[in-house]
Amino acid sequence: MKTKNITQGSFPNSQKIYVKGKIHNIEVAMREIELADTTDKNGNVIKNHPVTVYDTSGPYTDENIEVNLEKGLPKLRKQWILDREDVEELDGLSSDYGRMRLTDENLDHLRFDHVSTQPLKAKEGKYVSQYYYAKKGIITPEMEYVAIRENQRIDEIKEKYAQHKGCPMGAQIPETHISPEFVRDEIAKGRAILPANINHPEAEPMIIGRNFLVKINGNIGNSPTTSSIEEEVEKAVWAFRWGADTIMDLSTGENIHETREWIVRNSPVPVGTVPLYQALEKVNGKVEDLSWEIYKDTLIEQCEQGVDYFTIHAGLLWKHIPMTIHRTTGIVSRGGSILAKWILHHHKENFLYTHFEDICKILAKYDVAVSLGDGLRPGCLADANDKAQFGELEALGHLTKIARENFVQVIIEGPGHVPMHMIKENMDEQLAHCDEAPFYTLGPLVTDIAPGYDHITSAIGGAMIAWHGTAMLCYVTQKEHLGLPNRDDVKEGVITFKLAAHAADLAKGFPGAQYRDNAMSKARFEFRWRDQFSLALDSEKAMKFHDETLPDEGYKST
Amino acid sequence: MKTKNITQGSFPNSQKIYVKGKIHNIEVAMREIELADTTDKNGNVIKNHPVTVYDTSGPYTDENIEVNLEKGLPKLRKQWILDREDVEELDGLSSDYGRMRLTDENLDHLRFDHVSTQPLKAKEGKYVSQYYYAKKGIITPEMEYVAIRENQRIDEIKEKYAQHKGCPMGAQIPETHISPEFVRDEIAKGRAILPANINHPEAEPMIIGRNFLVKINGNIGNSPTTSSIEEEVEKAVWAFRWGADTIMDLSTGENIHETREWIVRNSPVPVGTVPLYQALEKVNGKVEDLSWEIYKDTLIEQCEQGVDYFTIHAGLLWKHIPMTIHRTTGIVSRGGSILAKWILHHHKENFLYTHFEDICKILAKYDVAVSLGDGLRPGCLADANDKAQFGELEALGHLTKIARENFVQVIIEGPGHVPMHMIKENMDEQLAHCDEAPFYTLGPLVTDIAPGYDHITSAIGGAMIAWHGTAMLCYVTQKEHLGLPNRDDVKEGVITFKLAAHAADLAKGFPGAQYRDNAMSKARFEFRWRDQFSLALDSEKAMKFHDETLPDEGYKST
Repeated sequence: MKTKNITQGSFPNSQKIYVKGKIHNIEVAMREIELADTTDKNGNVIKNHPVTVYDTSGPYTDENIEVNLEKGLPKLRKQWILDREDVEELDGLSSDYGRMRLTDENLDHLRFDHVSTQPLKAKEGKYVSQYYYAKKGIITPEMEYVAIRENQRIDEIKEKYAQHKGCPMGAQIPETHISPEFVRDEIAKGRAILPANINHPEAEPMIIGRNFLVKINGNIGNSPTTSSIEEEVEKAVWAFRWGADTIMDLSTGENIHETREWIVRNSPVPVGTVPLYQALEKVNGKVEDLSWEIYKDTLIEQCEQGVDYFTIHAGLLWKHIPMTIHRTTGIVSRGGSILAKWILHHHKENFLYTHFEDICKILAKYDVAVSLGDGLRPGCLADANDKAQFGELEALGHLTKIARENFVQVIIEGPGHVPMHMIKENMDEQLAHCDEAPFYTLGPLVTDIAPGYDHITSAIGGAMIAWHGTAMLCYVTQKEHLGLPNRDDVKEGVITFKLAAHAADLAKGFPGAQYRDNAMSKARFEFRWRDQFSLALDSEKAMKFHDETLPDEGYKST
Repeated sequence: MKTKNITQGSFPNSQKIYVKGKIHNIEVAMREIELADTTDKNGNVIKNHPVTVYDTSGPYTDENIEVNLEKGLPKLRKQWILDREDVEELDGLSSDYGRMRLTDENLDHLRFDHVSTQPLKAKEGKYVSQYYYAKKGIITPEMEYVAIRENQRIDEIKEKYAQHKGCPMGAQIPETHISPEFVRDEIAKGRAILPANINHPEAEPMIIGRNFLVKINGNIGNSPTTSSIEEEVEKAVWAFRWGADTIMDLSTGENIHETREWIVRNSPVPVGTVPLYQALEKVNGKVEDLSWEIYKDTLIEQCEQGVDYFTIHAGLLWKHIPMTIHRTTGIVSRGGSILAKWILHHHKENFLYTHFEDICKILAKYDVAVSLGDGLRPGCLADANDKAQFGELEALGHLTKIARENFVQVIIEGPGHVPMHMIKENMDEQLAHCDEAPFYTLGPLVTDIAPGYDHITSAIGGAMIAWHGTAMLCYVTQKEHLGLPNRDDVKEGVITFKLAAHAADLAKGFPGAQYRDNAMSKARFEFRWRDQFSLALDSEKAMKFHDETLPDEGYKST
């Protein structure tokens, strides 16, 4: 595979820095933005401190590292995992499908060069999830990494800086900074997850929870007609370059096994999937042919590739389907409609529900988190907050308990399309039923009439629900309802959700959230254009827009 | 002047309709969207009723009217005004500047062909404002027009349609429809304004108030370097084509008198200005040379051209200026900084404050509304909701009373940059101090770190504050903080704010607000692509995005 067109290189006036751990021998990657000095009216030169910001872009923006996609990223967590002495290296892949693909010579030209044939798995009788460790009182290197990362060095800032008191809406965020023990405790309580498959050691640890920075997910994925592996890898790199905290690979076309291998090996952020999609490909799209056996093999296949979390629509039950009959848009979730069709065809309960404990026992062996899918999320305002939606949510609460009993980390997916005044009820219901498991929503979109602008209709709902406590927002692109996002759409979507998530961090009063805003505003007041560009979520666009009407160099420096 | 490049023509599958009044002989313009039939699985053909939507685009989208910019739009309200027998036609312009420009032969080539030299003015001892009429119990044609317009024929719909119960946050919106008497009562209470200068008879009446549909304003305006009169008129036509309920002409370059004449004569929506900007041009930008006499002449000049509302920063007082010293971004409002400079130079109180009663007496003669400017609005999150901002707001409350005593319609301008959790306080304070005069905010932007995306950061805040009760949102374009918006930016900004305003209408539960969303969702569920495009706020973009990945004709019809 050719991998020439992958975006690399640092951000403007920025450098990668690494903050050392105090408990563990770890180095936490961040981005430091250098600022120009201020000269006051008396001619005194006053230094503006550099601003450290959360950085999801991985080694791609470290000028000292040359990423080689054929080799994959450095295995940051490999030794941490091995040091725990609770995993074994298998002799070969455990899934039939994985083995079949590995030995198919026709796929040699597509295959990742250094594909692992000896995945890790928990030793017999051992649990390897961050949730298990947290319950046992162990602060793992991953947990310390996350604590340092969430702080963005705010704990090192000496000078006083302005920040409005937040309104956390029930969140319990520490006042000054995040400690490793706080991270452990939140994971132990199930209020946060740290997705970290033992077979994805390339990932930089991150946390998803109501008492941490709001995260965003970017969906990528090929379809038969639109993309090559290279394009898909670049779309992933592009998504986390601009701020995607996780990516979901929703591929439905050919060679999704091989595409996923390339993505996981080169992804510094956790990767999520919907295994049902691939299982359906394996039965040539015939929903009625889906079976637990095929699904199970797919789970194992993906667990051993290193997928960090699975969306599993296990809460959509037979009894819920009649509740959707009078809906305006029926069942819009792809996973939901596949399972509804399966249930109605076989006259049986959802096999993901009946096998949920089996699923958890597999996931626990690799520390793959489960994201309980909302197959009945509303597809329009008219269907928002209806019995079908909340009925499923209640079932997700039941499944949350089962996941936790098996030491599987769990998050809950949410809508969808919801008018502004009905957003809070979604958060309230989720908290009431799901024992504070992190909420992960798609928007919600606050109106149906703006196709072409649904990154905005959903950013409005997303910012609001994140303020109310949603831990991660799934981005929506401007192509939503209309077509597949291209590279520009991915960027626009990521930045839009980044700003929505940040707006929520500000509203909740997360420690240091306002620091970058203050630096931007000061640069603005002092006409330090270059600093404004450097501090912007999207430096490229800010500079381009500026140069369209004021292209002179002189306008930029002072 | 050449006026070839003005956008005209109807929207896709739409026609202009005119709904007749019952009290007055009036015809209210709306847009009706035709939909395709639905064929159910049994082959039965079911008709989808056309959807009527609010239409700000004026005669430009009526296929039966050929707009001639040189002549201006039809004078819809002329006879209504004359029938009241409380105005007189003047022999000539009352302002020195207006007369000077009119007789300057060098301007002949720029001048609007049919410029009125005999403006209307209230007869001695008469009041001509909609507020005055409302207080007297008179339902004017303008008020009936507005009632019919707000309903969008929802009162004629026989079938039951889904709409969630709203959460009006203290607004008192009628349950089923808006009546002319309700319009009158709201205006009489000062809770709504109907901007309608007697010298702008071309304007289609509209209303701004908490118990009506949320409105949006689009700013346009030339600057010395960037635009011609033609470009500026087209920008105006473009803005209201896409949904601007009012436009503000913020021109600062040359020939702004002549540009404004072209805009007003061709605008079906109310036009607002900041007279201070033009007054400053008249003294060559020397703030210290500004005087009441020059300002007063400018007011009269613009009143007689037909400007419908003026932003007047009369609440920024001497005592407030010291409150801004420790701000991060000082005074960012242009009007505010001009006045602060004037106050500090002359060591005198703001002349707009000391002459506010004189101002009202002028405005009352033409029914020009006053939009009390927030010269001390915060320019960044750090400065949000501070003493300076709320101090000025309190002064605006005082001025509201004076305006009303003089039968001048009044609205209040608001911020700016405010984190989400501090937005509600702005609405609460405004309601507390300004006796329910309509609130008109600029966003607010909910973070400072996303230049290039400030239409979105402000749409988030805008949707939220509109839900809380803001009556009109001033749009922000993606060029905010970076440069001047071009035509594409204007459209993007208008649509973005249109969707934010609509999200608020939905949350408040305005009668019929969900009807278009429902129609869109049904079309989506039935894959009626053409209907989705027709129902979209931006049909062009929806179609373009769709065609990028699914260009086949076959995909569109069913």
